Amino acid sequence: MESKDISQAVISRLPRYHRFLSELKDQGIERISSADLSRLMHVTASQIRQDLNNFGGFGQQGYGYNVDYLYEEIGHILGLDTRHNLIIVGAGNLGQALANYVNFDRRGFHTKGLFDSDPHMQGVMIRNMPVRPMSELEDFIRENSIDIAVLTIPKEAAEDVANRLIACGIKGIWNFAHIDLDVPDNVRVENVHLSDSLMKLSYNLRDLEG
Amino acid sequence: MESKDISQAVISRLPRYHRFLSELKDQGIERISSADLSRLMHVTASQIRQDLNNFGGFGQQGYGYNVDYLYEEIGHILGLDTRHNLIIVGAGNLGQALANYVNFDRRGFHTKGLFDSDPHMQGVMIRNMPVRPMSELEDFIRENSIDIAVLTIPKEAAEDVANRLIACGIKGIWNFAHIDLDVPDNVRVENVHLSDSLMKLSYNLRDLEG
Repeated sequence: MESKDISQAVISRLPRYHRFLSELKDQGIERISSADLSRLMHVTASQIRQDLNNFGGFGQQGYGYNVDYLYEEIGHILGLDTRHNLIIVGAGNLGQALANYVNFDRRGFHTKGLFDSDPHMQGVMIRNMPVRPMSELEDFIRENSIDIAVLTIPKEAAEDVANRLIACGIKGIWNFAHIDLDVPDNVRVENVHLSDSLMKLSYNLRDLEG
Repeated sequence: MESKDISQAVISRLPRYHRFLSELKDQGIERISSADLSRLMHVTASQIRQDLNNFGGFGQQGYGYNVDYLYEEIGHILGLDTRHNLIIVGAGNLGQALANYVNFDRRGFHTKGLFDSDPHMQGVMIRNMPVRPMSELEDFIRENSIDIAVLTIPKEAAEDVANRLIACGIKGIWNFAHIDLDVPDNVRVENVHLSDSLMKLSYNLRDLEG
């Protein structure tokens, strides 16, 4: 089963399946029919069947889906069985919040270090890690096999920092800076633009009134 | 010009246009051709023309787009000229980070209060606002014309808190809890599921290697 054959639309729905399957697992549920999964997720049963058929026929007529198996398979497709070492650049409130999310470890994302350009932040301990100065960035990345950097810095600094990260081999950037980064083809960026999300809420509220 | 006629796909691209136009404004640029905007945003000029034609013909052949005007119009469509009063429920790192984002005020989103169930957080000052106990939630919402609640609490508490919010008239929920909320038709939820975003990055990194 090759992930390459799966459309981006399906891929973007997989984390949500993974999340619901994780809940079912936590509740001790071993199997679920596509009809029940459909009610739970507010997605049509036909959509679920189509999505899951894309990467193998996990369901059996009259049996439904094996929760554990489907959870593991989706996790595998999403690459969650690969270990990733992260650094967080920008140790403000948002960077600290992300450093403290223990759930990321469960999914194979291990935060190894935090960096900040503010001299007052140097040495502050966050989840047993000292905040490090930006001057140590390159050495730390090389010595700790870091492959993902989380950018929780103002947009003004984001381009320069991203270039430094890419120059020393970072392949994945989880970008919270309010800017779209220009990166080479062999680097992947996933943006979390909080203001964009808030604007969509604003539009939908206006639409509700109108 | 009615927002109702605009497809969700276009709507979801509008915040990005708004962001780029804001940058151009800040740089003092008064007009821009669709070709230049296309290069800047890495979107085809034809896509830009189609998107912007959806809500009026702002461009003129040989002149391009008036940056100020387009910025204002997109802001209007997105409802950014409407004032919204927010509360943040959950005053941990993430809630504090959001409370401190001054850019939200610029877009009409004003944080009026923070709430937390942790007794140790009561009275802690965040951006000149005291963290309030959950017992004050309903009165505060009514007395301060709150229409949006930001949920930065663990998923276990999210459903109950959302129900309390909706019961006293909250129409918009910006949900950071790792759960999909069931809400009535007249309530709008915008989710920021950080783990889903990280999983997409994971998939794209795996795809890069494979």
